[in-house]
Amino acid sequence: MVYLTRKAEFSASHYYHNPEFTPEENARIFGKCNNAHGHGHNYTLEVTVKGTVDPKSGFVVDLKQLKEIMNREVLDAFDHRFLNMEVPEFAKRIPTTENVAIAIWQRLASKLKAAQLHRVRVYETPDLFVDFYGEA
Amino acid sequence: MVYLTRKAEFSASHYYHNPEFTPEENARIFGKCNNAHGHGHNYTLEVTVKGTVDPKSGFVVDLKQLKEIMNREVLDAFDHRFLNMEVPEFAKRIPTTENVAIAIWQRLASKLKAAQLHRVRVYETPDLFVDFYGEA
Amino acid sequence: MVYLTRKAEFSASHYYHNPEFTPEENARIFGKCNNAHGHGHNYTLEVTVKGTVDPKSGFVVDLKQLKEIMNREVLDAFDHRFLNMEVPEFAKRIPTTENVAIAIWQRLASKLKAAQLHRVRVYETPDLFVDFYGEA
Amino acid sequence: MVYLTRKAEFSASHYYHNPEFTPEENARIFGKCNNAHGHGHNYTLEVTVKGTVDPKSGFVVDLKQLKEIMNREVLDAFDHRFLNMEVPEFAKRIPTTENVAIAIWQRLASKLKAAQLHRVRVYETPDLFVDFYGEA
Amino acid sequence: MVYLTRKAEFSASHYYHNPEFTPEENARIFGKCNNAHGHGHNYTLEVTVKGTVDPKSGFVVDLKQLKEIMNREVLDAFDHRFLNMEVPEFAKRIPTTENVAIAIWQRLASKLKAAQLHRVRVYETPDLFVDFYGEA
Amino acid sequence: MVYLTRKAEFSASHYYHNPEFTPEENARIFGKCNNAHGHGHNYTLEVTVKGTVDPKSGFVVDLKQLKEIMNREVLDAFDHRFLNMEVPEFAKRIPTTENVAIAIWQRLASKLKAAQLHRVRVYETPDLFVDFYGEA
Repeated sequence: MVYLTRKAEFSASHYYHNPEFTPEENARIFGKCNNAHGHGHNYTLEVTVKGTVDPKSGFVVDLKQLKEIMNREVLDAFDHRFLNMEVPEFAKRIPTTENVAIAIWQRLASKLKAAQLHRVRVYETPDLFVDFYGEA
Repeated sequence: MVYLTRKAEFSASHYYHNPEFTPEENARIFGKCNNAHGHGHNYTLEVTVKGTVDPKSGFVVDLKQLKEIMNREVLDAFDHRFLNMEVPEFAKRIPTTENVAIAIWQRLASKLKAAQLHRVRVYETPDLFVDFYGEA
Repeated sequence: MVYLTRKAEFSASHYYHNPEFTPEENARIFGKCNNAHGHGHNYTLEVTVKGTVDPKSGFVVDLKQLKEIMNREVLDAFDHRFLNMEVPEFAKRIPTTENVAIAIWQRLASKLKAAQLHRVRVYETPDLFVDFYGEA
Repeated sequence: MVYLTRKAEFSASHYYHNPEFTPEENARIFGKCNNAHGHGHNYTLEVTVKGTVDPKSGFVVDLKQLKEIMNREVLDAFDHRFLNMEVPEFAKRIPTTENVAIAIWQRLASKLKAAQLHRVRVYETPDLFVDFYGEA
Repeated sequence: MVYLTRKAEFSASHYYHNPEFTPEENARIFGKCNNAHGHGHNYTLEVTVKGTVDPKSGFVVDLKQLKEIMNREVLDAFDHRFLNMEVPEFAKRIPTTENVAIAIWQRLASKLKAAQLHRVRVYETPDLFVDFYGEA
Repeated sequence: MVYLTRKAEFSASHYYHNPEFTPEENARIFGKCNNAHGHGHNYTLEVTVKGTVDPKSGFVVDLKQLKEIMNREVLDAFDHRFLNMEVPEFAKRIPTTENVAIAIWQRLASKLKAAQLHRVRVYETPDLFVDFYGEA
């Protein structure tokens, strides 16, 4: 059983706002992130899959396939986008790093075949990241 | 004569669009960056000053002062902002990394006292950066 | 259940010495780290908390609060300090990276509210780090 | 119980080829990595050991000893080598990152004394890494 | 006048050997790098161009074009290759980092149009890099 | 003419204090760095030499020799030391990053033979560095 991780990057913008909060609550809870014009990040995504090593190829997963799935399911939809307006998961859910990681897990989990999705890590900045393992 | 460099980071969003171009030109020249919703980056800013070392303090520049100037003149204005709409320099100039570096030079050059501004470097991503030395 | 990690840095000095060891033992076991004048590091601290995502805010933890707790409980006490002489935990315990990580855990574990402390990671240098999960 | 990790680097070359595959299969499955001249990487190795902290030294493991074991068992054999031809484990096993991590685990696991090997992580590039915990 | 730098990576192998040297000289001068099987690196390439900013686009150089030139002239030829055997410049010149940087300069200098090549930087490892400015 | 740079690291402690200043001046000018117990950093040193490429070896400088000179002249003296008390240059000069860079230049400039010292860069932290080119 080995765990293989592949990194990728995407650049996106977002802002934090809950229409059920008062303007004061939105300002207090979300601070500078409440600016409706949005601001942005170079997100770093790490996708970890686990499985046994195929003795013929030495691979736990076909790396080209993993890259294609990450591109098609995540990067094509998130890169150079305003997450709140252009990615459906965030029409009603606030695109915090926590929710971005969960949304990416949900996009990837059913698409992987040979190996099993183990962890999604999302860095919003080099100093802040979230891990999601699919735990309820 | 020594050169001292201080780094800082800010998160902002932007998009590229020239109203004098046709939609086709904007799409061809700016690609994914032409999306009017904007997208974002964790920008890294490096400010380099040069000067002689004060024999009493061992400093070429007072670091606290340099930090305050960078915060007041640049970070407070750029961080968590949509550059096209919220930073005056980009009302008419496209906020490419080149123009961001020039704008930051113009904001800082006259504010430094003991030491002289030598270089402004702006990273848009870890793989792309621009240097400006104030050369015409 | 998500895991959120925040990084911070502090600069401190330390040395390794056990008064119960002979000078020869101290020199053999601790090598260059036995120099009583001390030497220093830019430590990197990663604090990981776990919890469920608040559906209203999208947060597992209030990031401003987490930052304040890390500053007040750890950075204010450790940054720009000689750990052996100025941080009480190391009056009798040797400030190895192992013991630094445990001390930070003990300072933080009871202070967090909504989320639960999951891991403290301390890098002494980019090539050496310790993880502590509160396990006895 | 603490976990201590030490990093090291080695530069090696390799290529991917299974003599039981047809040339077409080798080309399709391994792509550019099938080039028999080999190509290379700066591998980064992270070795994590776990154990309790010795109250006299503050160490979970003697760092000099850990470094010597990593040098003698791994780096001396792998650094500046063509893995397929010069490292016996890869005479018949393809030197994928997965198999490199497993081979390093097998070289180290029995050599550590006070502490127990917990994880071997191998980065082939900054964007691709494998973790092995000795799980069957 | 601004300077724009774009990074890219390639993985290649090489070895150092001068047929005019005796085996003893080759071993003494080149050490572990003299191993004829080759060993490898993840090279990082930084290409810096300089020019004036086009007021219509805000660009000093068309980034897509720069990327295509770097891919076509350098990466397609160097990536996943054994430099001594597969890149013509190194049939007779030793592929040291110095000579790799010069060869890349020569491949790129005449291909750039709007902007002028200013510097080629090549990292062989994170701790060793060479700059070439086209100076005789 | 090429420029070759080699990095190295050392861990040291220091504090800032000018006996000609009043305690209030020392506190105001040096802030937390005035703590006489000292605090520390993982310094990163980059040494750049320039010269022409030897056509026989492909080297601008013998890398083993450069490493030995850096170790003997700088690292053996600075690593795991309290700079103010244990490095003679700082008996009377304050060990700011500026003065550390100048002292390293003075230690290295006369020791290099084939190639010429071009630049000494010293990082005190990842966010602060000084360059010295030997300019008066």
